[in-house]
Amino acid sequence: MKRFEIAVKNGVVLTMDQEMRALNPGSIGISEGEIKYVGKEEIMGEEEIDARGCVVMPGLVNCHTHSPMTLFRNAFEDQPLEKWLKEYVWPVEAMLKPEHVRAGAMLAAAEMALAGVTCFNDMYFFMDEVAKAAVEVGIRGVLSEGLVELFSDKTSEEVLKKGVRFAEEYHGWKGMIWAALGPHAEYSCSLEFLSRIREEADRLGVGIHIHLAEVKPPVDEFVRKHGKTPIKALDEIGFLKKDVLIAHAIYLNDDDLNILKRWDVAIAYNPVSNMKLASGAARVDEMMKLGIRVGLGTDGPGSNNTLDLLQDVKIASLLQKLRYMDPSSLPAERAVRMMSRGGAEALNLDHLIGSIELGKRADIVVLDTRKARYLPLRDPYTAITYCSSGSDVRDVIVDGKIIVRNGKLQTVDLDIVVNEFEKAVADLFQ
Amino acid sequence: MKRFEIAVKNGVVLTMDQEMRALNPGSIGISEGEIKYVGKEEIMGEEEIDARGCVVMPGLVNCHTHSPMTLFRNAFEDQPLEKWLKEYVWPVEAMLKPEHVRAGAMLAAAEMALAGVTCFNDMYFFMDEVAKAAVEVGIRGVLSEGLVELFSDKTSEEVLKKGVRFAEEYHGWKGMIWAALGPHAEYSCSLEFLSRIREEADRLGVGIHIHLAEVKPPVDEFVRKHGKTPIKALDEIGFLKKDVLIAHAIYLNDDDLNILKRWDVAIAYNPVSNMKLASGAARVDEMMKLGIRVGLGTDGPGSNNTLDLLQDVKIASLLQKLRYMDPSSLPAERAVRMMSRGGAEALNLDHLIGSIELGKRADIVVLDTRKARYLPLRDPYTAITYCSSGSDVRDVIVDGKIIVRNGKLQTVDLDIVVNEFEKAVADLFQ
Repeated sequence: MKRFEIAVKNGVVLTMDQEMRALNPGSIGISEGEIKYVGKEEIMGEEEIDARGCVVMPGLVNCHTHSPMTLFRNAFEDQPLEKWLKEYVWPVEAMLKPEHVRAGAMLAAAEMALAGVTCFNDMYFFMDEVAKAAVEVGIRGVLSEGLVELFSDKTSEEVLKKGVRFAEEYHGWKGMIWAALGPHAEYSCSLEFLSRIREEADRLGVGIHIHLAEVKPPVDEFVRKHGKTPIKALDEIGFLKKDVLIAHAIYLNDDDLNILKRWDVAIAYNPVSNMKLASGAARVDEMMKLGIRVGLGTDGPGSNNTLDLLQDVKIASLLQKLRYMDPSSLPAERAVRMMSRGGAEALNLDHLIGSIELGKRADIVVLDTRKARYLPLRDPYTAITYCSSGSDVRDVIVDGKIIVRNGKLQTVDLDIVVNEFEKAVADLFQ
Repeated sequence: MKRFEIAVKNGVVLTMDQEMRALNPGSIGISEGEIKYVGKEEIMGEEEIDARGCVVMPGLVNCHTHSPMTLFRNAFEDQPLEKWLKEYVWPVEAMLKPEHVRAGAMLAAAEMALAGVTCFNDMYFFMDEVAKAAVEVGIRGVLSEGLVELFSDKTSEEVLKKGVRFAEEYHGWKGMIWAALGPHAEYSCSLEFLSRIREEADRLGVGIHIHLAEVKPPVDEFVRKHGKTPIKALDEIGFLKKDVLIAHAIYLNDDDLNILKRWDVAIAYNPVSNMKLASGAARVDEMMKLGIRVGLGTDGPGSNNTLDLLQDVKIASLLQKLRYMDPSSLPAERAVRMMSRGGAEALNLDHLIGSIELGKRADIVVLDTRKARYLPLRDPYTAITYCSSGSDVRDVIVDGKIIVRNGKLQTVDLDIVVNEFEKAVADLFQ
């Protein structure tokens, strides 16, 4: 019998491979951090995970968040976006220190790991702290310093330098962290600045993470000022490539969609945040039918308020059905793919992660579906999309290491993380 | 020190009383099934529940569902409503026997209890079985036989008789069950039939539970045929009173809203089902501002797919924000009230349940909020609305009896319930 470091056995395995094969039951053999076996044979492991009655799937990918904003969770809510930012978030952010970000990022990484998120795409400040938190908890991060050019008291080159410095230092760090450049949005960065971002991204070999067309007024304002849509303008300056991920992308016209398709630009869809802030509903069902890469994001905890993709995937599908007034929009199998393999593709990491296939790094989630509200399980994609929440995540493996077992974090002491987080919150909001 | 049968201590208590008082921490003393103490004093109980770090709130009320449809969960989904009903649900429903309904209702009642739902408003067939299941699991039910007049091979009086027989037999049963008459919808019942329903409801002293204006075509069709909206027609035949609960109520005009307000008719808002079936978004924020009683419903597991109000309340609020493009729509405190006291009011049971006040029956939920994704807890209404799921329910008390403790059902053996459910599914779908 084949023997591996870790054997995951007896579960319903959703491989997310090209053929979307499901094995029921299936076995997964893992050694040296890599998936060495996927199939129906009996296998053995030095460590064995019995996934009987569970669904086993690739690790979830959170394609857009601001993870340290756990610090801002559950306060001053149900407000218009501008008021929330100006009266609450920005004044406090002005006082943020690296130790606050560290505490917020540690709680966020723990929360994501416990909810089956094994990779996240993050934009914030003091990203060194986020990188360290991700590695300590044991999840992967694609990280970018948020670069707000136009409302800064620094010069554009100084702002850019902050992002470049982080990328130079952390891209590829410990095989778990990738850097990106994070120009904030179409209304907070000039086209000249975005051209510089493109040059630096090419030089560094890193991707670009940007908010775009999240709400309507800045898009209208952009069109008034430039005589074209933001997407058209970015196309013309050569900004758009396969390494660009656009968060939100709600107010796009047909030409914009075609431009995104042509350049193979990726999208992060954030249904909860987009509803909570009353931003709107992106044209995701159409994007996916066009073949545009779309991943699922939670956005920051201030506008969600959790980092729980398994709860958000239901809302992702529901919002598309309502948007198109068609219950067949964003069906379950596509929704589940979007939050796993789709996210890996959107981040250009699908050569490494996103599916349970030979040779991929072993990022795997075991969902405990032996609960009344999943029954009868029948189609596992449907059950995951419409019945699950992060609380059902039982075991999580990242890079061949078990970081969550029986719902308990194995890498860090959650009590200490919570304690330090509460101290940071008290200090910041005193 | 005061002594009670049960003492719930040390939690953040959301009383949902007229002043929406919160006690942090608060104590609740329960004896003889009744709330005998609410306050800040130290108390003792023969049985004590330590709710330190938890939020304690009134039991949740599911205002609209078809609970035995657990049998239909997770199959043939992401389809247009008509196709789903005609090709899947109806052919199977034609073969339903009481024992299938019993198995489906038992699983549903267990699922609801575990998710903190202590009272549900249900419409289906073989409701005797649903009544027995609710009582066995230990939750309250407002139950109605679904009366489909127009597509039946029985006479209208025969159809009516089925509903009347159930009401006569079960209204007030064991202090846990209330009956209602359940004319199915504006398109499946004639106005003459609805007049007969009103007469019988008055005679029996029971309420009326009806689907109305869930989708647009039948409303348009009704207006074409009758020259007025369904609400206007029901007004004219004297159907509308305080004892009527309308599920969905999406396609209403301003006059309709005013008529509902005038007659103090209650609404069940089903955001997940309304999005999943692409029905639309009800004008709930306006209804609540008008003072119309609105409760939250999951609808049946076929169109949700869970019976988890704590997950649905987030979507309830998000959908209103999107509908009005205003992030202050249906804010957290109103959303949490809607799924507890609001539901009790909608079912005309608020003299008995719905708040944690002296003299009310003891229906209480303890939510374990000591989890990363709730932190910092800050405003508990916000945390419940945006961070919770049914999996966080730790303890549930109904009528002074602990039916869930530490997440485990105390009244029935869940393994047996699941086993019988799976046998019923296998038999029905063979």
